[in-house]
Amino acid sequence: MKVTVGNRTRHFRTVTFDTAKNSVQLIEQRLLPHEFKIVATRDYRETARAITDMIVRGAGATGATAAYGLAQGARAFRGRDLARFGKHLTLVYQTLKTARPTAVDPVNAMDQVRAAMSAGKSVDDQQSLALAAAEDFANEDVRHCEAIGRHGADLIHNGMRVLTHCNAGWLAFVDVGSATAPLYAAQAQGKKFHVFCDETRPRSQGATLTAWELAQQGVSHQIIADNAAGHLMQRGEIDLVIVGSDRTLGRTGEVTNKIGTYTKAVLAKRHGIPFYVAIPLSTIDWKLKSGFDIPIEERHEHEVLGAWGMISNPQSGVQDLKSAQRAYVRVANPGSGARNPGFDVTPPELITGIITPEGVFKPNQLWPSRMKLGFAGRNRIVSR
Amino acid sequence: MKVTVGNRTRHFRTVTFDTAKNSVQLIEQRLLPHEFKIVATRDYRETARAITDMIVRGAGATGATAAYGLAQGARAFRGRDLARFGKHLTLVYQTLKTARPTAVDPVNAMDQVRAAMSAGKSVDDQQSLALAAAEDFANEDVRHCEAIGRHGADLIHNGMRVLTHCNAGWLAFVDVGSATAPLYAAQAQGKKFHVFCDETRPRSQGATLTAWELAQQGVSHQIIADNAAGHLMQRGEIDLVIVGSDRTLGRTGEVTNKIGTYTKAVLAKRHGIPFYVAIPLSTIDWKLKSGFDIPIEERHEHEVLGAWGMISNPQSGVQDLKSAQRAYVRVANPGSGARNPGFDVTPPELITGIITPEGVFKPNQLWPSRMKLGFAGRNRIVSR
Repeated sequence: MKVTVGNRTRHFRTVTFDTAKNSVQLIEQRLLPHEFKIVATRDYRETARAITDMIVRGAGATGATAAYGLAQGARAFRGRDLARFGKHLTLVYQTLKTARPTAVDPVNAMDQVRAAMSAGKSVDDQQSLALAAAEDFANEDVRHCEAIGRHGADLIHNGMRVLTHCNAGWLAFVDVGSATAPLYAAQAQGKKFHVFCDETRPRSQGATLTAWELAQQGVSHQIIADNAAGHLMQRGEIDLVIVGSDRTLGRTGEVTNKIGTYTKAVLAKRHGIPFYVAIPLSTIDWKLKSGFDIPIEERHEHEVLGAWGMISNPQSGVQDLKSAQRAYVRVANPGSGARNPGFDVTPPELITGIITPEGVFKPNQLWPSRMKLGFAGRNRIVSR
Repeated sequence: MKVTVGNRTRHFRTVTFDTAKNSVQLIEQRLLPHEFKIVATRDYRETARAITDMIVRGAGATGATAAYGLAQGARAFRGRDLARFGKHLTLVYQTLKTARPTAVDPVNAMDQVRAAMSAGKSVDDQQSLALAAAEDFANEDVRHCEAIGRHGADLIHNGMRVLTHCNAGWLAFVDVGSATAPLYAAQAQGKKFHVFCDETRPRSQGATLTAWELAQQGVSHQIIADNAAGHLMQRGEIDLVIVGSDRTLGRTGEVTNKIGTYTKAVLAKRHGIPFYVAIPLSTIDWKLKSGFDIPIEERHEHEVLGAWGMISNPQSGVQDLKSAQRAYVRVANPGSGARNPGFDVTPPELITGIITPEGVFKPNQLWPSRMKLGFAGRNRIVSR
């Protein structure tokens, strides 16, 4: 999507590859929204570290980073010995796989690249095929997000006020995003609408990343405290809710997403407001039979007990340039602890529709439509 | 309630009067939870300023402060001329009244003091009566909170997990509090229970004040993000909700309270969890006929866009003593704005009961019980 730095507006993807320098280029997401910077990794080890250190995050974006990282590692090999090349490639694969051990997207993406490489007869061939497959992976991610946008844009009409939660934006993918895709597509169609971004405590991805994205694209928006959505719905100021999902159960239509999503779904149901979930096919879990089996990560309590930001003047909201620095402030009582579940599960009866690259489905239509939606009789979806 | 400073534990009220020094003593609430300090105002002007500057906040506490401030001003008068004394008193009254123009509690409290003073035949008499009436006001506030505690404690059983929102604790009253009163009473009865404090963004009164209160009283508790309550209810980890109220409509049973209260009520209803509101009689509005007529204050957007706290080490959560300082950090995207409604309205069908000093009432029982609940045919309740 477009980003304006100084007076200059350019199109960026979260992840790209510089063929000449054999380098993966990443938006340094830890500095956003306060600073925009591109990081170039010099070798696959640095690329793995960028995944570990969360310079890059999100399903599509980490998948593409690992795919490019595998190609980067493959292309760094000097020699023609296929056996030695194979050993080297295994090392690269393992390094990138262990960069963030619980994530499935990097593994799925690299498996796709490796499958494509197997057609190559020489080291040279395989190196070329690796890069082409990584590019294919990234482009397919973008196409899928664009398809989500096309289907979702039909739900957005002039004058609507749309609520989002957390960030399932282009920063989590290679471009366009999932929950944000319908917004960008509707904007491109010339529709006028307003977005309320839940700040999404405790990590505030709505206030930081989604708000930054929308500001860059010139989409009218305001941040609200997570507490405020119910009041706005009650007063008739929200017409539509769109969120993303980390894991959607194909068998039941249950949606796992950032903590607080369930609350917004309950409120939307009470007020008769349509509640949509936008997902790429890769996040559908065809195996699990109940949302209660989804492990809910309990995160560090200091996320709840304080906040990260730039030390600023509260009157003007402008950071004091003389002392500009990022800091963690302890907000809570020093003697108190916290519970910090990272995700929650929204049951299908609260969900109006699930927007996929293949169209919009009722939650209970996922399983009957599984062949169309990439079900392959197993949990891992290799083809994205 | 008791407060431990260093190794010493003592009982404090939020507001007391030092007769010898003719001084109002206040807990400096703006420094909590990071520092505990008592401020002594030297004259009624300083007392008014303490109300304006929010050193003291909350219905009961500001009422008592104004009552004591009026006595303080009366007692500072030298001379026997009742006419000159009357003029002086009007000045004191006006100064304290305009300290926070929209608050009704200071005015109601001062009217009670003035009514008591009118029986005095001399300046001396009236000065004594003023102080006695202010003490009466403060003591009555405490007795009413204790009565709320007695009625509410019956709802709390061993092993319960109780959710609270914002701070309707003893810091908002002279002592004991409203929503916290049942907790303290149940604790005194030897019951064991656990409290989840909503952090209550954007001003975080749950994470700062309620958590501080509960820690000081040794009540088991944890802070949660406002987003987490729905998930905990879904997993069966919350048994009871108790909140306070800034304004409860006597005719309809609608409850105005800190933004996010309505959301918790909707969630509690869905999960069949009892939802109680604890209120002193002075917050019942007998006049308004609909919750939609309640003006909802739109507060400064910087509350949503950032957070106040002590600059700390996020790993240990401990503030770095070398650089210990309070700071405002801008969390949100610098180019984005916010909506910041301060309160919301919870309809009666979501409320299990309203805990008052006179007992627990269903929301629709307030109006039929109005004579018992201090209704005097007009909006302002002079007798507390």
